[in-house]
Amino acid sequence: MYRYKITFAYDGTNFSGFQIQPNKRTVEQTLKNAVNKIAKHPTPAIPVIGSGRTDAGVHAINQVAHFDIPYHLSNESMRKALNSILPLDILIKKAELVDNDFHARYSAHRKTYRYRVDQGEFVNPFKRNYTAHFKYPLDLQKMKVAAKDLIGTHDFTSFVASGSQAKSNVRTIEDIIIKRDKIRNEVVFDFTGNGFLYNQVRIMVAFLLEVGSGQRPVDDVCKVLAAKDRTLARMTAPASGLYLVNVDYGTNGEKD
Amino acid sequence: MYRYKITFAYDGTNFSGFQIQPNKRTVEQTLKNAVNKIAKHPTPAIPVIGSGRTDAGVHAINQVAHFDIPYHLSNESMRKALNSILPLDILIKKAELVDNDFHARYSAHRKTYRYRVDQGEFVNPFKRNYTAHFKYPLDLQKMKVAAKDLIGTHDFTSFVASGSQAKSNVRTIEDIIIKRDKIRNEVVFDFTGNGFLYNQVRIMVAFLLEVGSGQRPVDDVCKVLAAKDRTLARMTAPASGLYLVNVDYGTNGEKD
Repeated sequence: MYRYKITFAYDGTNFSGFQIQPNKRTVEQTLKNAVNKIAKHPTPAIPVIGSGRTDAGVHAINQVAHFDIPYHLSNESMRKALNSILPLDILIKKAELVDNDFHARYSAHRKTYRYRVDQGEFVNPFKRNYTAHFKYPLDLQKMKVAAKDLIGTHDFTSFVASGSQAKSNVRTIEDIIIKRDKIRNEVVFDFTGNGFLYNQVRIMVAFLLEVGSGQRPVDDVCKVLAAKDRTLARMTAPASGLYLVNVDYGTNGEKD
Repeated sequence: MYRYKITFAYDGTNFSGFQIQPNKRTVEQTLKNAVNKIAKHPTPAIPVIGSGRTDAGVHAINQVAHFDIPYHLSNESMRKALNSILPLDILIKKAELVDNDFHARYSAHRKTYRYRVDQGEFVNPFKRNYTAHFKYPLDLQKMKVAAKDLIGTHDFTSFVASGSQAKSNVRTIEDIIIKRDKIRNEVVFDFTGNGFLYNQVRIMVAFLLEVGSGQRPVDDVCKVLAAKDRTLARMTAPASGLYLVNVDYGTNGEKD
């Protein structure tokens, strides 16, 4: 068997998320169909292991997965074969033959998620599936101060959705970068950490938007973290603004 | 009756074009439903008259239409009322009470269409519905020289699709601007004229792409125009790259 690592983008708009669900169009199922077609439909079917799930409507710039296949193809042939089968809302950017101990999920060191907030007066029809809309002025300085308190190793129980099945809610956020994109009239958040809980990024974004628009004090983060109470963070920003932008393996040609 | 002019954007991806067709989701039908809801569903139903049709998948940044309604609302109330009813892929940018002799179609002096060509190596999943994809290098200078021969008053029979019902194929193109957008890695065409035939812009774009990529000589335009033969222009660029960006009425607060 040959193990391939694939790095791919998808527009999450028309997918019911990454994970396979019966009778739903999912990224995992779509990839699995393509891989099994290339492998001439073996029994049992070859699974495709992603670095992690994304929810319905969430996008990816560089998601990663791996699979084992009984045929050897050059990296470029594998990339082209997959792209020729896949629909246009998934694009394989890279396919690499990797060691059999590479695992898309367990080998991941850190992930970066981006969140795009459109600041236009109205919902832009062309951005409705690709950003969240928030028309109120945002004080970036306030959000940056609040974000600093989220960085580090914390119990993020106050920032996890009720559906989470994580055993521990302790995670480490390495960095949060908040920038204004003047050309697009957006505010863009980049979160890098060793892992994120269910809806954690979207809950943190909604929290920071409350801080930036003056609905919540700048020093609220420590209090809410300490309370370990989900009801205090209240809101969840919509899926449409969220992008998985990088999964870092620290090796394998990836930047550390 | 009060006549309102509306200026609106739409993402054409999920519409079967502008014009009403039975059992299809169209821009005209969607607008008509909203206007008649505001007018409390009179009989006969109030029609909505657009400046012209756009095909399935074609977008608009500033399309214009008018309708007559038995109630007077402030411009801002009309805009808000429509937006509160319309789906998010149509956005009313402006509503204006206008004279009863204003006609969205017959009062139009000129229109501007934009065409976006993405030059990435692969189809970008996020741009698949919003650009055409053309990966081969384009010589802008060559396209600009060829475009000059399209400007002016010509019989565009060689550049009209077979479904056209126009009585005359003579139209005037006032300007063609071709620019490279380095940030987006796109080439963008802006066509301004007193009217365009069925698929004319998309056929001209495909022609210019052939010139820009060296598949057709720069001085081919005059020959093809003179031949009045549609088979010479051959290709039609896809609907996804096309945007109606402006309808100019020369009055009514619009720039001339």
